[in-house]
Parts: sequence; structure tokens; C-alpha cells
Amino acid sequence: MGLRMRESGLAGEVVGHARSAATRETALRRGLVHRVCDTAAEAVQGADLVVLCVPVGAMGAVAEAIAPHLEPGATVSDVGSVKRDVIAAVAPHVPDGVHFVPAHPIAGTEHSGPEAGFAELFENRWCLLTPPEGTDPEAAERLARLWRAMGSNVEEMDPEHHDLVLAVTSHAPHLIAYTMVGVADDLRRVTDSEVIKYSAAGFRDFTRIAASDPVMWRDVFLNNKDATLEILGRFTEELFALQRAIRTGDGAMLEDYFTRTRAIRRGIIEAGQDVADPDFGRAARRGVAE
Amino acid sequence: MGLRMRESGLAGEVVGHARSAATRETALRRGLVHRVCDTAAEAVQGADLVVLCVPVGAMGAVAEAIAPHLEPGATVSDVGSVKRDVIAAVAPHVPDGVHFVPAHPIAGTEHSGPEAGFAELFENRWCLLTPPEGTDPEAAERLARLWRAMGSNVEEMDPEHHDLVLAVTSHAPHLIAYTMVGVADDLRRVTDSEVIKYSAAGFRDFTRIAASDPVMWRDVFLNNKDATLEILGRFTEELFALQRAIRTGDGAMLEDYFTRTRAIRRGIIEAGQDVADPDFGRAARRGVAE
Repeated sequence: MGLRMRESGLAGEVVGHARSAATRETALRRGLVHRVCDTAAEAVQGADLVVLCVPVGAMGAVAEAIAPHLEPGATVSDVGSVKRDVIAAVAPHVPDGVHFVPAHPIAGTEHSGPEAGFAELFENRWCLLTPPEGTDPEAAERLARLWRAMGSNVEEMDPEHHDLVLAVTSHAPHLIAYTMVGVADDLRRVTDSEVIKYSAAGFRDFTRIAASDPVMWRDVFLNNKDATLEILGRFTEELFALQRAIRTGDGAMLEDYFTRTRAIRRGIIEAGQDVADPDFGRAARRGVAE
Repeated sequence: MGLRMRESGLAGEVVGHARSAATRETALRRGLVHRVCDTAAEAVQGADLVVLCVPVGAMGAVAEAIAPHLEPGATVSDVGSVKRDVIAAVAPHVPDGVHFVPAHPIAGTEHSGPEAGFAELFENRWCLLTPPEGTDPEAAERLARLWRAMGSNVEEMDPEHHDLVLAVTSHAPHLIAYTMVGVADDLRRVTDSEVIKYSAAGFRDFTRIAASDPVMWRDVFLNNKDATLEILGRFTEELFALQRAIRTGDGAMLEDYFTRTRAIRRGIIEAGQDVADPDFGRAARRGVAE
């Protein structure tokens, strides 16, 4: 966000705080911010917009720490992957006269920390705002404008529905990927080096998301427990039906199922949320014209 | 294979057969082969090497059809993702004096058909040869040389072990991806358009492999039933342990688990089987210098 806001002149000054001095130094060196502060309380002083970018389990404590130092008329937002629990943790600390507009940019890589950011991250990705009832529409619209200026498409959503949608598109897939990678690592009859060498057969696609930040994801699951467990329950039911088709040799059921899932992929390509290059963009990366 | 063999001058003549006339025409137009034949029997006449590239459930019938037309001293190979059942289906048809060297190039995309091929597909990917006992080592070595000349790393493996390794690195991940995409598509409270728009949160990574050819994958599961069901059993056990940790709020267990799975990803990047670019190569695709 800092890189993009500075690049596009979207803020007079971008001020940052992070717990560790090393992160603060890297943020300065990479130009993510104009200056850093040693405490969150100092960093928010005089700010029009305060964005909480910490694991969702830490949002409440940070909100409490900054609350007395927020400017009247300021907006507090966040980038957490869970909305209902974050609202419950943060809203009670937001003083009267300060706006609270929770947000979730659906963008990111498996990398985290101040070295991982790049200004194009939000380009053509969605950002969901989940303002609680009674939020000033103007404050929400101001934040929406900022996200649009950073390249995002913006939509508003009810926090509960957000958590269910994300359980499907993000939280359950992450847990499943973590599980599959864990199984592969555990299996004594197949070595890790075999798993790694032959990963291009499909497994590789799982390992990217299973390399995401452990603390961030621990907190996501603990704070979106109900929706995640619901989707995992549906997933297991469905997986058992397919396992049964394999066991009984029901080829028609398998073929039908696999034909149906193709359509979803086409939708994602058409919506510009992934590329269909048969070479995964390898040729372009090498600078070769196809 | 045809593109790469022609590009690198690895065969005097590449002759192709496919069931449908449209596929044969496309193969000719794209230069995948020098010429096409209307039947498999004609296509194999005078060939030094015959490679079966059909769904694994169709291998036996094709082997039977070509058997009387194979040249003495020729080698029959295949590119099937399952080896034990393919050997059982093909080997009985291979005449005396003809070599049979089963192979499995661990490379491919979610696309299939004659438009999807590109000459660099096998570059730095593994190709596993699983010669049955009694195979002429010289025939196996000749085939290994061909795969190396197409850019692959080659290794020999026992067919049973191959099927277990691939169940872990490919077959179970594909079934899980198909299942997750099916669940998302089924869930009435979350629309398909929401699933597609917000897919960048993790789901997208599953849809690529869940878009693979339905008939090919139906046959893989039906022909590698035992190993696939074994791995899915382990997967479910592990998934239940993680679900339980979410339900009981065992954050330490989740964090430990997610930390362990990161190491596997690092191994894959170091082995050159994927790239770690934080921007997924987006900038390079656009021709922007980072």
C-alpha cells in the first residue's frame, strides 16, 4: 500500500510502525513509508487514515493501544482476512468521532514482510469493504476511492457473508493445501526429495499457498472457525463421494464431476483473475516471443 | 514431443495418428508431425519408436491394434500417469523382438489436445522410466537419451513405487482440487460469480489443476485406485486432526504445522521446479523491469 500510495501521490505522508526495528528499517530503505515511529501510538498522530496490517488475532490489542491517539474525523481500517471477529475486537476501541471501515484486499502472495511488497499487487484485484451498521457512508466512499486509485475493484459486503465467501475461496483451500503438503512430508515410503522432484505433476500448485505466513493463518482459522468448519464439512462429504466412485469404479460419475469443475476455471480466466498461458508465462519470463 | 523432436532434429520422421480427423489436421498445421495416418496400424509401420499418448484406460486397446504392425527391434513406450496397470494392459500385446519401455514425463499443463503443446514443456522436468523386469537395458538407455535431448532429467523407478509417488504428488492433489472446486460450485449461499471474483485468495491455485482433461483423469483414478485411496485416507486423517485443532482453538498445533509445510516449498523452489517471484512473474509478462 505504501509503495503504491507514494508512487501515485495518494497521500501527503505515509507513516509506518512495526514491532521490530529490523522491519522498520527495511520499510524505510525500500521506501514503503516516508518515516517510521517506534510506537503505534506515535504513528497514528495526526493521521487521516490508519490501516491495521497485523494478524487478525492482534487487531484488538493494536486498536486499544492507538485509540487515545486517534485524530477526530480520522478513519481506521484494516486488511484482515476475517471480518466479523475483527469488527468485534476493534469496534469497541474506536472513539466517537472516528470512523471505522474494515477492508479486505483479496490480493497477496505466499511471501510476507517488508521485502515482499510490490506496487502492482492490487491491480485488478478486488477489495471488499465491510462497514458495520451506522458507518458514515462518506468515510466508506473515501476509503473506496483510495483502493480504486491503487488499482482495485471495490465492493461492499456484509461481514458475515464475507467470512463465508472467504472460507470457500481462501480459508478452506489453504487448510487443505497445508494438509496435503503435511501428508506428503509425513509419508515414510515416499521421500521428501521425491515429492520435491516430481512436484510439477500437481502438488506444486498446493505448496505455494501452504508456504504462507503461519501466524497469520493460525489467526485466520481461529477467528473464522464456524465458516471454515462448515466448508470443510461439505468438502469431506464430497471427497468421500468421489473416493467411493473410485473404489466402486464409477467412471461416469468421475468424468461428469471433472467436466463440471472445468467451467469454473474458464470463469476465472475470463474475469482476469488468472492467466491461461499454456506455458505458465515461462517464455515471457525468459523474454522469448512465442 | 513432436515439436521438440523436430526442432532439435531428434528423429528422421515423426508420424502421428489420432482418432479424430480434426486433431490430425491441427497436428499437421502446427507442425507437430511430418505426416499423419488414418489408423494407428499404418502410423507405426517402419517406426523405431512408438509412443502411446492416450488416456491410460485406452492403452491396452491401442497396443492390441498396433501389435501385428510393429517393426522387429522397435521400442514401444507411453506417457501415461499410471504405470502398473498400463504395463499389465500393454505388455501382453508386445510381440517378441519388440522392446517395451514405459515412461512418464512429469510435465504438462491443464490444457490438452494438439493446440496445447509447446516445445519447451519438458525443459528441466523429470521423466520417469519404469522398464519391467527383463527389458533390454540398451532400449531403455536409448529412450532415456531421447528424453534428455528434449530437456528432461531421467530416472528409472519401480512401477509400483512410481504409482505411490504419483498418488502423493499428483493423483491425490488433483482429486482434492476437483473436490474443492466442486464444493465451491455447489454451495448455494455463495454464488459462482463470488467464487470467481474472489478466487485470488487461494482458490485460484486449485482451479488450474481441476481444469485438466476429465477422461484422462477418470482413467488415472480408476487405474491407480489402491495408491490413491491410501493417500486420500492419510489425507482425511490429517485433515480431521487440523479441523479438531481449529474447533478446540489449539493455535500452537496449527502454527507448528504451517511452519513445517513451508520447508517443502523452499525445497521445490531450490530444485528449480517452480519460481518464487512475489509477483507471479506478472511484471515480466508485461515486459516491465523490476
